[in-house]
Formats: sequence, C-alpha cells, structure tokens
Amino acid sequence: MTFKAPDSLSEQIAQHLAERIIRGELKERERIQEQKVTLAMNVSRGSVREALLILERRHLITILPRRGAQVSELTQQHVRSLYTLVMELYILLGYAVAEQWRSEEDLAPFRAIQQRLAEAREREDILAFVDSSFAIMQAAYPFADNPYLQQTLDNLQPAIARTYYMALERRRGQMENLGAVFDDLLLAVIARDQAKIREVLLDYGKQNCELVLAALAER
Amino acid sequence: MTFKAPDSLSEQIAQHLAERIIRGELKERERIQEQKVTLAMNVSRGSVREALLILERRHLITILPRRGAQVSELTQQHVRSLYTLVMELYILLGYAVAEQWRSEEDLAPFRAIQQRLAEAREREDILAFVDSSFAIMQAAYPFADNPYLQQTLDNLQPAIARTYYMALERRRGQMENLGAVFDDLLLAVIARDQAKIREVLLDYGKQNCELVLAALAER
Repeated sequence: MTFKAPDSLSEQIAQHLAERIIRGELKERERIQEQKVTLAMNVSRGSVREALLILERRHLITILPRRGAQVSELTQQHVRSLYTLVMELYILLGYAVAEQWRSEEDLAPFRAIQQRLAEAREREDILAFVDSSFAIMQAAYPFADNPYLQQTLDNLQPAIARTYYMALERRRGQMENLGAVFDDLLLAVIARDQAKIREVLLDYGKQNCELVLAALAER
Repeated sequence: MTFKAPDSLSEQIAQHLAERIIRGELKERERIQEQKVTLAMNVSRGSVREALLILERRHLITILPRRGAQVSELTQQHVRSLYTLVMELYILLGYAVAEQWRSEEDLAPFRAIQQRLAEAREREDILAFVDSSFAIMQAAYPFADNPYLQQTLDNLQPAIARTYYMALERRRGQMENLGAVFDDLLLAVIARDQAKIREVLLDYGKQNCELVLAALAER
C-alpha cells in the first residue's frame, strides 16, 4: 500500500455526502444547500464549497451557476452511458494486465481477490462482493501505470457504486454469475487473449447494465 | 449553442492559471502557492482553493496534502498514458457519430470544421488549426449523448492542449498530414466503418504522441 495522508476536511465532507447519494438517501435532482451542510456538519462554508467541487468531479452532483448544487440525474440514458464508458476503460486495464504480467507473483493479488469473491458469495455478503469487485480495478492500476486512466476511473467509481447500490438485491441473485465472469476474465488475462478479455467484459457490462435498468424501471 | 452562464470567479482564476500551464510559463513540478495567487490576482483565498480543485480535475496540477499544489508532471510515460486513454475515447465518439448520423444536415458541422482546418492550413495558422481539432470533439458530443464521456474528455482537454503546445512547431510541419487524417476519419464515419475509424484514430494518436515525445526529449 502507498502512504495515504489523512483526508482533508473537504474530502471528509465529500465522502459523507457521497455515501448518502450512493445509498439513495439523497435523491436525484435533490438540492444540496451549502448553508444547510455548513450548519448540519458544523464546518466552514469554504470547506463545503470545496466538497461540492469534489462531488461534481465524481459525477455525483451538478453545480449550476447561481442555482447551486443538486444530486445528478440517473436516467436510463445515464446508466447506459456510464457502462459504455466504464467498460472501455476496464478493457484498457484488462489489456494492460494481460500485456504486463510476467510471473505468478504478479497474479497473486488477483487470485486473492478471486478467493475473496468466492467467500463473499458463500456468505451471501453482497457488500463485500461489491468491494472486491472494485478491488480488481485497484489491483490492475499498477500494470497500466496510467495516471489519467486511474484518475478517470477513480472519479467514475462513486457513480458506478451508486448504480450497484440501486440494483443490490438483483445483484445478490446474480453473485454466482458475476463471480464466474471474473474467473473467465482472469483466464483470458493469463492467456493474454485480447478478444476474449473484451468479450467477457462487454458481457459483464451488459449484464450489469440490465440489472440496473430493471431496478430503475421499478422505482 | 447551449446557453452558457458567465464563469464563476474560481473558474476564471482556474482558466488564467490553466493557460499559463498550457503555454509552459508554469513549469512541471512548479509550486503554486495559494497566498501568492490570492495577492497577485486580488481575490479571496477561498476562490483560489476552488480554482486549484478545478485545475486538479483537469489534470494540470497535483494537490498534495499539507504540501500544496504543484504543476503536474509531463514525462514520456504521462504523454503515452494520455494518448492511450484519449484515443479510446475519441474512438467511442467516432463510433457514436458513425452509428447515429442520418442526414447530410447531421454532417454539416463536420464539413464546416473540415473547411476551417483547410483554411487554417492555408494560412499556416497553427493555433486556429488546433482549435478546430478540438471543435471536432465538441461537434461529436451530441451524437454520443454521453455525459460521463463528455465530462471525462472536457477534463482531459487542457492536458492534451498542453502537449500540443509543447509540440507546436512540429505540428506546424505536420498540418498537411493531420488535416488529411480528418478527411479519412470523416469518410470512415460516413461509411459507418468501425474498423477504419479505429485505425485512423490510432494512427493519428501515434503520430501526435511521437511529435510530443520528440519535443519532450529536446527540452
């Protein structure tokens, strides 16, 4: 692990609000008033404004000039757009690991995650399952060694988490399937098979996107 | 054009600093001190802190906890990483236009840019040429209708502009080539030929990346 400094106050405020948006406690298009947050959290207005910029970067809110911040929309078009983009980025990561891995040691982090996914599936622990699926992305970063890709995916992760949360119960039913996807993906990466990596990830994206769209249609 | 509100003060400060970084007046790893900017521009510290968050999102600075902001590095690895990512995103845009265009009217914005590129080449006006090349991206956005892709590319644009600026004189010599690339791209898009779109854009990315790497090696 790299050294991680304690988060700044504005980062802490952003994370607090992010969790509330991801869990759906703050609804789409709901206004986030600077002053209310300032009072509720007993922090300075400046820190709240900075937190809002961080949330905007993470695609969770929209800041409209002179109209303030509101929780960003999550329409069917948004969900499809998000998955279209994210899957291409996952494919880039997959290619990087396929190209760069040299030894069993390089693969160890992925085997460990595979184990954790299996255990989470066993316990039917959907939140641990979701966490492990993000851990795959983190484990792939050093292979791509691409700071722009990493920042872009880190910024998109909360929006993805928001869609996962929305389809959580549906994902529970699909844990078996989604776990098998990672088994296939790891085999394709080890075989350095780009076409297969692309196929597995696009299938996974489609499956996931449909779970979310179905959940969205029911709201 | 959509309605555009006047930029906030922090956005104006960010744009001022962004230009200085893009032009190379602020060098990589150079520290940007909040207080100095506050005094030099006669603005509040809060606005400067917000501007720095905007610049971080645009990949132009890095903010280190308790060590402040510095202009982000631009190593060979950074340039390669940037082009790897951006070309995949341009390809997604290219596919979207190829898939969605229906009438000559849909293509009109691209034909207009093609004309502007030719004129800029004629006048050897490299800055107008660079501007027109970004205009292609903007004209493609409505076809993709993907807010995440759009925000991601908007955030990456200043970093791309920074590399273009670095290789400006080399790009001047290549204006003929780069203009021909767009002619090929537009033909591939009209033919809805995904493989050709991918090929043309990856070639373009490689060409551009090499111009920048050559300029970087000479510094």
